[in-house]
Amino acid sequence: MEKLKGIAASDGVAIAPAFRLVEPDLSFDTQTISDPQKEILRLNDAFDASKSELETIKEKAKSNLGEDEAEVFEAHITILSDPEMIKQINTEITDKQENAEAALKSITDGYIQIFQGMDDNEYMQQRASDVADVTKRVMSHLLGVALPDPALIDHEVVIIAHDLTPSDTAQFDRQFVKGIVADLGGRTSHSAIMSRTLEIPAVVGSEQATELINEDQNVIVDGLTGDVIVEPTAEQVAQYQKKQTAYLAEKAEWQKLKSEQTTSKDGKHPILAANIGTPKDLPGVLENGAEGIGLYRTEFLYMDSNELPSEDDQFEAYKEVVEGMEGKPVVIRTMDIGGDKELPYLPLPEEMNPFLGYRAIRISLDRTEIFRTQLRALLRASNFGQLWIMFPMIATLNEFRQAKQIYLEERQKLVDAGQPVGDIKLGIMIEIPASAVLADKFAREVDFMSIGTNDLIQYSMAADRGNERVSYLYQPYNPSILRLVKRVVDACHAEGKIACMCGEMAGDQIAVPILLGMGLDEFSMSATSILKTRSLIKRLDSSQMKALADWAVTEAETNEDVKQKVEETVSEIN
Amino acid sequence: MEKLKGIAASDGVAIAPAFRLVEPDLSFDTQTISDPQKEILRLNDAFDASKSELETIKEKAKSNLGEDEAEVFEAHITILSDPEMIKQINTEITDKQENAEAALKSITDGYIQIFQGMDDNEYMQQRASDVADVTKRVMSHLLGVALPDPALIDHEVVIIAHDLTPSDTAQFDRQFVKGIVADLGGRTSHSAIMSRTLEIPAVVGSEQATELINEDQNVIVDGLTGDVIVEPTAEQVAQYQKKQTAYLAEKAEWQKLKSEQTTSKDGKHPILAANIGTPKDLPGVLENGAEGIGLYRTEFLYMDSNELPSEDDQFEAYKEVVEGMEGKPVVIRTMDIGGDKELPYLPLPEEMNPFLGYRAIRISLDRTEIFRTQLRALLRASNFGQLWIMFPMIATLNEFRQAKQIYLEERQKLVDAGQPVGDIKLGIMIEIPASAVLADKFAREVDFMSIGTNDLIQYSMAADRGNERVSYLYQPYNPSILRLVKRVVDACHAEGKIACMCGEMAGDQIAVPILLGMGLDEFSMSATSILKTRSLIKRLDSSQMKALADWAVTEAETNEDVKQKVEETVSEIN
Repeated sequence: MEKLKGIAASDGVAIAPAFRLVEPDLSFDTQTISDPQKEILRLNDAFDASKSELETIKEKAKSNLGEDEAEVFEAHITILSDPEMIKQINTEITDKQENAEAALKSITDGYIQIFQGMDDNEYMQQRASDVADVTKRVMSHLLGVALPDPALIDHEVVIIAHDLTPSDTAQFDRQFVKGIVADLGGRTSHSAIMSRTLEIPAVVGSEQATELINEDQNVIVDGLTGDVIVEPTAEQVAQYQKKQTAYLAEKAEWQKLKSEQTTSKDGKHPILAANIGTPKDLPGVLENGAEGIGLYRTEFLYMDSNELPSEDDQFEAYKEVVEGMEGKPVVIRTMDIGGDKELPYLPLPEEMNPFLGYRAIRISLDRTEIFRTQLRALLRASNFGQLWIMFPMIATLNEFRQAKQIYLEERQKLVDAGQPVGDIKLGIMIEIPASAVLADKFAREVDFMSIGTNDLIQYSMAADRGNERVSYLYQPYNPSILRLVKRVVDACHAEGKIACMCGEMAGDQIAVPILLGMGLDEFSMSATSILKTRSLIKRLDSSQMKALADWAVTEAETNEDVKQKVEETVSEIN
Repeated sequence: MEKLKGIAASDGVAIAPAFRLVEPDLSFDTQTISDPQKEILRLNDAFDASKSELETIKEKAKSNLGEDEAEVFEAHITILSDPEMIKQINTEITDKQENAEAALKSITDGYIQIFQGMDDNEYMQQRASDVADVTKRVMSHLLGVALPDPALIDHEVVIIAHDLTPSDTAQFDRQFVKGIVADLGGRTSHSAIMSRTLEIPAVVGSEQATELINEDQNVIVDGLTGDVIVEPTAEQVAQYQKKQTAYLAEKAEWQKLKSEQTTSKDGKHPILAANIGTPKDLPGVLENGAEGIGLYRTEFLYMDSNELPSEDDQFEAYKEVVEGMEGKPVVIRTMDIGGDKELPYLPLPEEMNPFLGYRAIRISLDRTEIFRTQLRALLRASNFGQLWIMFPMIATLNEFRQAKQIYLEERQKLVDAGQPVGDIKLGIMIEIPASAVLADKFAREVDFMSIGTNDLIQYSMAADRGNERVSYLYQPYNPSILRLVKRVVDACHAEGKIACMCGEMAGDQIAVPILLGMGLDEFSMSATSILKTRSLIKRLDSSQMKALADWAVTEAETNEDVKQKVEETVSEIN
């Protein structure tokens, strides 16, 4: 018996033998070649072979997973047919006299890097994965090695992988794939998101799974705690079977909450909303009973394009979301470019510390023509439902005042031109410590605030959340963070304003009891976390949670203190 | 009449005709050369010519400025004699077949970049300037163009320059050079530091001075406000002559305070201490009547070396400073490497956001062997005076507890070995917002806290202080910053601990009244700011300043609000 600890990525418990989905060696040497034409032909053949393979996988995916889930392979085939990318690789071969492998890697790495940079945007993360996935397939054909084929699985298994790609997951037959353990990944990695979509219990970031787990060894995956047990004892198997049954019963209960209003034990009604990146996310939002959109990230409109999106293109996207939510509030964040999000057509200065640099509202207030276009599109879309506008990365009152002034000017112009505009609420993201500290002043001037916890924690701790060396400082329950959050909530309520949160923390089962106790008005999270959170809140008494929150901001000293106390308190309730 | 606005860099007022100290064109083409030996000879000649020129300048500097100030040219000559650097340039010429100009630039740029990265360390900044300065001289000989010669000045002038190098300033005859205006630079640039040392009124960062001011135009330099007036009216000249006289009278008064204890109007005694980077800074500290060292940056011991400094080398340096201060407290900060400070012999990971990365205490707690060596050196030096140890970049209580534990272990080992150790106070830098927010908890466990305002402002505002695009967010008087500062001071006092500050802000004449009002115990600043600050505090009533500080943290909304109110309040006192 051996135990591994990873990140709980998709709820549930699985017990089955291991199936190692481990990549073959795709390494190669960069070579200077004398006959570029020959390399271009090799590349074409590899592209063709990959395309035909993907057609087969797509058909399998359709029958296993349905039409929608098979779409990703259509996207892969489209990538393989992208004339621009092929041209770039061919040019690389010709200009640098490189072999096809090196040219393929060089060009696709560029694409992947751009998409991966956008690490709080699931949509863009998926695109990075798509390109990586397609590249791997083409590379396997160039090198003449076979990729393992999960479509062959014909008995119940737990998949053991270094990381999972969409091609992998799409070939999974849910009848047989009972659990997933991956070396890499976090809560928002593709493998985690896909296992939640497939509702397969999963543990990611286990680091050593592929190293320690052999083919056919019996494995328990606890997607609730992140525990993985290899070759469990009979007693452990019995224990986890019991846990599995209890979880499935619980899950059936959650589904009943889909159309229910979120209600705490003592009758409080916080709003549970969803974070989205594109109108395509709407069906998932509605299926999970969201009571609004708490964060619509508009970056993808800018990033998924070769030029600045027109006012009309933006208007259509915003309108689609606002209409789709049928009168429920939709909080749309203005462009949050910069930091780790780059635009190929809008070169930004090279910065030593981009997270502390020229980004988000700082760009909008500097390049006001881009900002004004977005505001006009938002104003026009506001007629079609309940639209709120939120400015990202506000650090000072003057920045908010400038942004509001520009908004009012554009509003007036539209009104003067006879364009009807809705009743828009204007708010700010609280993700910079200075604005959290000064929340009382901000509360007098804004309609709402939404705490962006990923950035707030990053800046408050001075620790890049993408940097593994300092990842131990990503401490959402640290009393310092909780104090800042409480300060914001209290400041809003003192002025009769709305306090929201739209970071990972809003759906975190340790944080939710405290946030409920603080009186947070809106929790915005991944759509798939909503029903679980609704169920949790239903069991919680807000005044009891208030005592817990008060303890956390006055007595607690460390992240661990808080985590332990919340776990104790919630387990006593159950 | 034309008016320019820059950064007030060195106090005082000057009125005199312009002398343009503008660099000749030192641009060149990178060429592929066929005869490397010829380029190496050209380089040697240029080095020799530069050396002999520097010998002459050194002699002039000795007679104009004195032995100490001439030392910098000894340093320049040493750089020109550095066999390692010469070898690197020669190798570059041979390996890359580049002309001498290109090879010289390539190698010296590398040196400059490393030193410049350390932008809160005046000592390292000066070394970067030294190399740049020497390079320029060698380049002028390679290109056969003449550098302007400030030693020729024989009448009263205001120097107009793009930037100033030590060679420039060393040739200044203080009898004739009455004022300085530079396009580039900030409060801590070489030009600013040197003008303060020379006590020449200066405005830096004026951006357009060399563009707008012609040779011999009459110029007023107001080093108190940063104003520069070109071709002033007779009325303006009269007005500024009056201001000049008043300033000189004031300055004479300051000198009288050198041996006086710092005392507010109502008899409070905050400590005014100095920030230093090396034992060489001690004479300046003593001349300016410092009541302690509030920040001894130990990085230079690590950076100014080809390997990790030994325990004994560190011990000697710490002992020299502690002894030199004759029983006055010396706060020594443990290694603050990382961020923008790199060590050639200790490769750190490439990071996307080094300011949010692996640095300072994060490295010390990870590479404990380096940390333990430093702690042993500090413990041994503690016998020779009053030594306090301060840990940089503490974000959580657990980090402090770990650091303290390691300190206690090393202390015990020394005690067990019969080594006497002094009574050391153990404290932390408050430069991360999270630790400011949680100051009440820290106050129970530390002996003192020292607020590092440069970093605290940078993180609280999420704005890299070295990034010009977001420099508008460097707002020391923003109420959010002042609230964090007050929280730290109050937390310390509630537990009977000592509250210090060691950033730029501690010597800032707008911030000082507020900090006095908050009850800050120790202000640590550039030595040259001490007497001015002592004089300011002498005129201030701490309870009146308390009202001002209370207003700033409760009523004020913006940086500008605070600045204006302090200026009004202080001008009413005078």
